[in-house]
Amino acid sequence: MKEKVVLAYSGGLDTSVMLKWLVNKGYNVIAFIADVGQDDDFNKINEKAIMSGASKVYVEDLKKEFVEKYIFEMFKTNAIYESKYLLGTAIARPIIAKKQVDIALKENTKILAHGCTGKGNDQVRFELTWMKFLPDVKIISPWKEDDWLSEFKGRKDLINYAKKEKIPIDVSLKKPYSTDENLLHISYESGILENTSFKPNENMFKLTKSPKNAPDKEIEIIIEFTRGIPSKIINKTENIEIKGSLNLFNYLNKVAGENGIGRIDIVENRFVGIKSRGVYETPAGTILYKAHQDLESITLDKDVIHLKEHFAPIIAKLIYNGFWFSPEMEMLMSAINKSQENVTGEVYLTLYKGNIIVNGRKSKYSLYNEDLSSMDIEGGYNQKDAAGFIKITGLKYKNLGAKNETMGTKLQVE
Amino acid sequence: MKEKVVLAYSGGLDTSVMLKWLVNKGYNVIAFIADVGQDDDFNKINEKAIMSGASKVYVEDLKKEFVEKYIFEMFKTNAIYESKYLLGTAIARPIIAKKQVDIALKENTKILAHGCTGKGNDQVRFELTWMKFLPDVKIISPWKEDDWLSEFKGRKDLINYAKKEKIPIDVSLKKPYSTDENLLHISYESGILENTSFKPNENMFKLTKSPKNAPDKEIEIIIEFTRGIPSKIINKTENIEIKGSLNLFNYLNKVAGENGIGRIDIVENRFVGIKSRGVYETPAGTILYKAHQDLESITLDKDVIHLKEHFAPIIAKLIYNGFWFSPEMEMLMSAINKSQENVTGEVYLTLYKGNIIVNGRKSKYSLYNEDLSSMDIEGGYNQKDAAGFIKITGLKYKNLGAKNETMGTKLQVE
Amino acid sequence: MKEKVVLAYSGGLDTSVMLKWLVNKGYNVIAFIADVGQDDDFNKINEKAIMSGASKVYVEDLKKEFVEKYIFEMFKTNAIYESKYLLGTAIARPIIAKKQVDIALKENTKILAHGCTGKGNDQVRFELTWMKFLPDVKIISPWKEDDWLSEFKGRKDLINYAKKEKIPIDVSLKKPYSTDENLLHISYESGILENTSFKPNENMFKLTKSPKNAPDKEIEIIIEFTRGIPSKIINKTENIEIKGSLNLFNYLNKVAGENGIGRIDIVENRFVGIKSRGVYETPAGTILYKAHQDLESITLDKDVIHLKEHFAPIIAKLIYNGFWFSPEMEMLMSAINKSQENVTGEVYLTLYKGNIIVNGRKSKYSLYNEDLSSMDIEGGYNQKDAAGFIKITGLKYKNLGAKNETMGTKLQVE
Amino acid sequence: MKEKVVLAYSGGLDTSVMLKWLVNKGYNVIAFIADVGQDDDFNKINEKAIMSGASKVYVEDLKKEFVEKYIFEMFKTNAIYESKYLLGTAIARPIIAKKQVDIALKENTKILAHGCTGKGNDQVRFELTWMKFLPDVKIISPWKEDDWLSEFKGRKDLINYAKKEKIPIDVSLKKPYSTDENLLHISYESGILENTSFKPNENMFKLTKSPKNAPDKEIEIIIEFTRGIPSKIINKTENIEIKGSLNLFNYLNKVAGENGIGRIDIVENRFVGIKSRGVYETPAGTILYKAHQDLESITLDKDVIHLKEHFAPIIAKLIYNGFWFSPEMEMLMSAINKSQENVTGEVYLTLYKGNIIVNGRKSKYSLYNEDLSSMDIEGGYNQKDAAGFIKITGLKYKNLGAKNETMGTKLQVE
Repeated sequence: MKEKVVLAYSGGLDTSVMLKWLVNKGYNVIAFIADVGQDDDFNKINEKAIMSGASKVYVEDLKKEFVEKYIFEMFKTNAIYESKYLLGTAIARPIIAKKQVDIALKENTKILAHGCTGKGNDQVRFELTWMKFLPDVKIISPWKEDDWLSEFKGRKDLINYAKKEKIPIDVSLKKPYSTDENLLHISYESGILENTSFKPNENMFKLTKSPKNAPDKEIEIIIEFTRGIPSKIINKTENIEIKGSLNLFNYLNKVAGENGIGRIDIVENRFVGIKSRGVYETPAGTILYKAHQDLESITLDKDVIHLKEHFAPIIAKLIYNGFWFSPEMEMLMSAINKSQENVTGEVYLTLYKGNIIVNGRKSKYSLYNEDLSSMDIEGGYNQKDAAGFIKITGLKYKNLGAKNETMGTKLQVE
Repeated sequence: MKEKVVLAYSGGLDTSVMLKWLVNKGYNVIAFIADVGQDDDFNKINEKAIMSGASKVYVEDLKKEFVEKYIFEMFKTNAIYESKYLLGTAIARPIIAKKQVDIALKENTKILAHGCTGKGNDQVRFELTWMKFLPDVKIISPWKEDDWLSEFKGRKDLINYAKKEKIPIDVSLKKPYSTDENLLHISYESGILENTSFKPNENMFKLTKSPKNAPDKEIEIIIEFTRGIPSKIINKTENIEIKGSLNLFNYLNKVAGENGIGRIDIVENRFVGIKSRGVYETPAGTILYKAHQDLESITLDKDVIHLKEHFAPIIAKLIYNGFWFSPEMEMLMSAINKSQENVTGEVYLTLYKGNIIVNGRKSKYSLYNEDLSSMDIEGGYNQKDAAGFIKITGLKYKNLGAKNETMGTKLQVE
Repeated sequence: MKEKVVLAYSGGLDTSVMLKWLVNKGYNVIAFIADVGQDDDFNKINEKAIMSGASKVYVEDLKKEFVEKYIFEMFKTNAIYESKYLLGTAIARPIIAKKQVDIALKENTKILAHGCTGKGNDQVRFELTWMKFLPDVKIISPWKEDDWLSEFKGRKDLINYAKKEKIPIDVSLKKPYSTDENLLHISYESGILENTSFKPNENMFKLTKSPKNAPDKEIEIIIEFTRGIPSKIINKTENIEIKGSLNLFNYLNKVAGENGIGRIDIVENRFVGIKSRGVYETPAGTILYKAHQDLESITLDKDVIHLKEHFAPIIAKLIYNGFWFSPEMEMLMSAINKSQENVTGEVYLTLYKGNIIVNGRKSKYSLYNEDLSSMDIEGGYNQKDAAGFIKITGLKYKNLGAKNETMGTKLQVE
Repeated sequence: MKEKVVLAYSGGLDTSVMLKWLVNKGYNVIAFIADVGQDDDFNKINEKAIMSGASKVYVEDLKKEFVEKYIFEMFKTNAIYESKYLLGTAIARPIIAKKQVDIALKENTKILAHGCTGKGNDQVRFELTWMKFLPDVKIISPWKEDDWLSEFKGRKDLINYAKKEKIPIDVSLKKPYSTDENLLHISYESGILENTSFKPNENMFKLTKSPKNAPDKEIEIIIEFTRGIPSKIINKTENIEIKGSLNLFNYLNKVAGENGIGRIDIVENRFVGIKSRGVYETPAGTILYKAHQDLESITLDKDVIHLKEHFAPIIAKLIYNGFWFSPEMEMLMSAINKSQENVTGEVYLTLYKGNIIVNGRKSKYSLYNEDLSSMDIEGGYNQKDAAGFIKITGLKYKNLGAKNETMGTKLQVE
């Protein structure tokens, strides 16, 4: 009997050829197509998988779970990789890889395959998740294996193989860069983008207008959060109100994209040590990141904010590197979840030509105290206490200052 | 003989009344006016100090030193307080307070005074710096002292005192919020802004146009950095080139402000534990922060970037809380300076209606390697190595997975 | 009607005089005596409180709760202040201060008093806990208040007042240093110990023999932990087995003390910025700290261990500074509790003349894998994978090395 | 012409066979023997290298450089891996690997070989250092390569090969565990030690007596440090004084070992993700670690101590993982070096049967202030200031307390 392999299948040239190639090597190939919100015709991909030799196809709609259990969980943490990247691809891999294991278990096999390159992050994210949920997984990763690499030197070989094997390909669709799309973002990288001084054409972008092309009109929106999770969007300008995790996320993507929000062009450091140029569109995410942090500013204690700020890059690195499912991540998420208990309230925003302008925020759990903040009234604060506070806080300088040659006297600014 | 006190003097109602009040209490008051780039008529303030009773006035132009030894040094660190605030006021206090000590030493006194409120951060920044450079300083901080507080309950008492003492006041100028201005920014807080749902009027802003009112035109600029310090600005659209620390910073403020860049509206946590709403305009700083970080993305090693990201909030907190001159800050700056040795190169930006769009970056020290990054050629990278890399990296899951009840199996997403 | 105040009462000269003094100032004073394991005659202290004028006395036995909810919780975290101090006093203050609030609420008052000095840490720990559970507390802290300070310049004044007021005092007991005792430790500080070159006499120590005087005999013990909490002690040498939180902690104190374990002599940094010399005896705690960490070495994932190591000094600082009850501590404890789910097993120790020698550890959740660890068999590990691992890990040097003047080439060792 | 390879040669069975095997494969093999203080007969090893087929042998005495540029530099940082391991092997690898590159450059080759296993840390430390200084190095690591692995399944194959090739071997010397020795430590691991419940025999230990067997006599020593570096040892009990980096380190090893100091038995986490049991003897290092930290307690500012405590595990991990020569390490060492400017003074210790008892410390740069510390005199400290300090510090509880359902009220101890 043939060995079964579950292949993460996208419908593109690479995985289509790979599917057939695995069949030709004697495997019973099951294609797994994950719908995480990319703009695809899943019927067509399903069909193509069959035509490429799949014995069975799973098309899984993961959108709701992706928004609720991955995207929204991640946005609680304010994770942003290298201060710039909202982890759009990184957070989609764990759900896909985990579902692939579920299918493998159902199909009673331990052989899993993906079509990721050997230079990127996705291979790591897939394989670590597989190893986590299926420790004795047998991994097929053709782009890291000799027999594949010796047969397919470049795109041309893939096309020839497809032609020979009668795999339908749509060469006209070929773009001079690669993209990854899901509910949270589209990424663009490699190809012509490898030249970091090449500025991509406006027509590359799919989810967002450029600020220049966005309408010259301010849109007022309100985002409500409940325990750190977005629970309602109100577009005041257009009198629209949206609820439901997936609905509101889709709507937010739409309104953000129309108003030119969410593009970045960066050079990031891949886990494998390669610096890589990436262009990203993350419309809804860019707004959520800012709005959530703003609501935290009134609902969280100062030291909790500072602790979260300290954790954010640690968490971002874990997600980026493929450790979403890891004991250290569980530990950190326990702390994060604790912190979100009162992150409930509303944030008022204006969207305008690429700008997200925060106009205010409100919460029944607000720790902002207008009286205490006031410069005109005491509000329970005795200014004289500050004298003692500062004297004690500065006591260390008394010690340092009493020495002739202390470190403290050799200042960098002199 | 009268005791001498050096008062940090702004020319406003508070410090003018304070000056006279100190004279009336029997002090010989020396007024110290620091020019850190605020939009003031220093001759007029000088005059007013004399009219308020100062025996001597120092007006010190600190702009160049402020830009070179404080602002630019700080921007090496990517410090940003609570992920939002570029520390415009915080970084100006140490230079002012240190100069005030210099004057005290010259005048042979150890008595220093400031007019900061007892609820804010500035009192701490002043007094810590004084304690650092003059450990046996005698501090006069009227807003924390009984005799002043009992005499001046509110603004009205100050005005009456000024009238009685013939101190010139310009009541018409009174704004319904307080501001602090210097080369790096203007802050607006308190008064009508204490209501966090109050959206300030457009006419409050001084350094920036709103994105809405900014011209509908893209401006292309290039910023050159040398060892982490901005060294040249080129406005390609208008064919302008600016060098010299102060010149270029002033120019950058101008072009940023015109294009609607640099406003934020936040709630921050003061060192004394009060949540406070602040509105800030930081035109040049907002661009520099983004451009510097972008140049670092190609000139710094991945792990150096991650270490700097870890340090940034620590450093921001130190600066915010008044520890610019402290041994822990010196330690951190030694590390930061080491990291900046190769942060030399150019960043290409488009400014447009509030947006700072990064178009590219270039450096002779770039660690970005197009061949290595390429998905089409190997560039010295053997993809098969990645298989080993991932297997070793995921080895921990082998252990975890072999257990029945390990922590790792109780996942947050299930 | 007189205002009620609840005073944390120790039975010593200071708080006895303070009690009477508060009565003489017109307060109805309720004495609160916390039994956290110090070696005291509580009946006698109770009586003395009455004789000093207390209208009512609460003696609360907090030992079990102290061990279970404070000491054992803290030891989960491996917190150790400045790498040396096991926080014996710091962890006792929150429970005492919290119980004092409970009594105040029962007695329907908001006035609380303690006898801590104004230079120490304990005042902070008491008052922060009070503020936490009784935000509108009225604090009486005589050593920080003018009326007390003007009346009591030194010990002599206290004795005279006691004599005058017929408060029983036992002058013979006066030690030339101050101590604080509870189940976890005794501290010695101030007085003759302020001279850091003064080596205390052997007769100062109360809980431990010196290594020199300890018996020349090795004692073998086993400590069992359940989810990070010590659950059984077995003394194999003497064939003794102890269960029950308080019993086992008391027993561990005894056997540790007899074998010369748990003394340190350090200079630490108080929260108020003073460097202070402290001598501590922490017999059971010293063993627990080491044993718990050792068990974690086999039951925790590598990255969890590293995260905990990162948290430990942060947590230690929070506990030391009085933030045991704080939202940031709750956040961190959520993470710590998550990590302890599998910290179940046994540690084998030899105690000998001050030494705690770890002989081994065992756990059903052990992640130690003898096959994997073996140098002789593969155990599921393919050594060839390591080649790829290292090549990818070292890829950054390829980039750095390709540059002529990169930072990397200016090495500190040349 | 034959290709040259420089092999790190120890004289043991593995590298002797490896040497010959490389010769048989057609290489011109140059043996490099690093003397980092291990107890070896270098003439004999030299001879053996020749007999095994080396064309040339380098024996390099690296002891002084190792102590001064590696060991002492590392001890400035207080690095200790996983709170237990003083990095004795980890810190020796960079100097050996770097010297090997120097020889390769002199010999005009880029081919380097080592005999480390594919499961351990040393392979990483060697290869990362090689890649750093010779980015286009060609690495021969037989234990990770097919041709070697297929020929040598176990020790027996090595012995047979040696016999066949007439390589002198001393089978009687074979120990049932492997060791690594240098000036700083000896490690014991693998073999019989892989069973973590196996307690090694007393005769395994080489550098230290057990506490039990150490003399029942207290030895008093003084260690002087200059800018963080040990500069003199005085044995007061035996009236001996030692200077000079290597001399004093050797002496400290001797006196520590005699007094039963420096053994640990741990389970650690290797970089490659394997948990490994190690037994270590680090006599001098154990004392230096403790003494240096103690001197820092009086010579460093509180916040500098806390920052160093935060860095220590980060640095330990870098050294352990092989990143001694890395830009992130340079950054951190810049900070560390800054911190050590005043770490000059003496520490007084008693050594006794495994105990290192700190009796006191002294420094002309001491920040300890007896007056300030005193509970009897003010010393420039106004206790009333503490009232303000605490009120401001606890202000956050006012906010939290004013809420009905704040996070803060759901306490872990209830």
